[in-house]
Amino acid sequence: MSRFQDSDLTYNDFLNGRLRLWQPRAGYRAGVDPVLLAAAVPATSSHTVLELGCGAGAAILCVLTRVPGAKGVGVELQPSYADLARRNAAENNLPIEVVKADLSALPADLKQRQFDHVIANPPYYRAGAHSGAADRGRRIALGEVTPLDTWFDTAARRLAPRGHLHMIQKADRLPDMLAGCAGRLGSVEVLPLAARAGRSAELVILRARKGGKAAFRLHAPLILHAGERHDKDGESYTPQVEEVLRHGAAISQFFSK
Amino acid sequence: MSRFQDSDLTYNDFLNGRLRLWQPRAGYRAGVDPVLLAAAVPATSSHTVLELGCGAGAAILCVLTRVPGAKGVGVELQPSYADLARRNAAENNLPIEVVKADLSALPADLKQRQFDHVIANPPYYRAGAHSGAADRGRRIALGEVTPLDTWFDTAARRLAPRGHLHMIQKADRLPDMLAGCAGRLGSVEVLPLAARAGRSAELVILRARKGGKAAFRLHAPLILHAGERHDKDGESYTPQVEEVLRHGAAISQFFSK
Repeated sequence: MSRFQDSDLTYNDFLNGRLRLWQPRAGYRAGVDPVLLAAAVPATSSHTVLELGCGAGAAILCVLTRVPGAKGVGVELQPSYADLARRNAAENNLPIEVVKADLSALPADLKQRQFDHVIANPPYYRAGAHSGAADRGRRIALGEVTPLDTWFDTAARRLAPRGHLHMIQKADRLPDMLAGCAGRLGSVEVLPLAARAGRSAELVILRARKGGKAAFRLHAPLILHAGERHDKDGESYTPQVEEVLRHGAAISQFFSK
Repeated sequence: MSRFQDSDLTYNDFLNGRLRLWQPRAGYRAGVDPVLLAAAVPATSSHTVLELGCGAGAAILCVLTRVPGAKGVGVELQPSYADLARRNAAENNLPIEVVKADLSALPADLKQRQFDHVIANPPYYRAGAHSGAADRGRRIALGEVTPLDTWFDTAARRLAPRGHLHMIQKADRLPDMLAGCAGRLGSVEVLPLAARAGRSAELVILRARKGGKAAFRLHAPLILHAGERHDKDGESYTPQVEEVLRHGAAISQFFSK
């Protein structure tokens, strides 16, 4: 599809309703991941933020909601999602420019610009692992059309000196993420995200810095859910995560300095 | 020095005295790290174990103490440490053969052999980060004479199909460790070791399998010390770690299956 109809969309609250987003009912839907990603970004009001593959805009709009004054650019390959991100930005009065482009071939003017922050929540499936999805938009979002390495290459090129990349991704891609940083970005830190205490990490948030020279760090995991198992009556997030999701708290304190 | 004199040595208990080792008073001294490494190895009594850079033999002798019937080969570059490993094996009646060799150029007969397990506790300092040590043995042990990548290359070549590598190393080398596995070993898993709950990992134990196809996994950290800070009156290990150090418990349950 090239454009979503309103009947294809749902309207959802983020950050306790400070941000309200239209999302496709059947396509890629933002959950807690872009909110956690945004909470990791140490942006200040003078900063610029570039999101690669912004979808309907959840992550970058969370950053701009949390940091008034910061300005953003979202790059999105699919016109229907790019339109939705523009609509979401406008309805929330947030200053982002949405560029419909392939992140491996950005427009010339964007290639002239550098950003204090680059953020990305790349699709979670490997190329070939996902097939036959009826919804092409969802397939592009979930299949690996763009190799993970390309996300790092583009991010590193668009970062200003000392600028930060933050990426959220499935934990099983950590080797590929670290390989993507090699020779491009330094001061790499990893915050594991585990569903429950004592469980293996499901996701990781990676932070890396342009020109960074600090040693790699592997932080203590952030635990998402309280209790031993899933509570069917509610999400039962840990208080730390509840603060992020409901009140826009930062998680940058879980990283260095 | 080419040989240690008895006056250069101390005699220390491991695994609650089931294993007693001579160690250089001033050179590289085994602490808890080789004991934790050994506890991660799922060896059985019919298995063969190769340790690369065995030093005075602490890790491989811990494996053989924990798994009666298993047989080992230790490779050590420095003759003084190789002699000490032989003495330690003999005095503890443990079946290891110690080969004085550079792990990047193993003797021809060893190159014909394959092992169910390879273990390694490579030196913890980067090349160039350590200089001017008066003790050449300690310098070789602490400086990176052999690149980390070479350890993975040699390990992968000497592992039998489905055989396991276990390596303990500083957490800041995780990117290099994962790069070392790439294209050589699969089913990579990482167990972070943190000094205290909530702290970043200081060390990691990496498990990888020859021919393994499973996705990468990042496990919940194993916490070494109880309490918020160092107790000067004692080591105050967590009960789990105390079980490993004193009673030879396994930590393989912290890995997959």
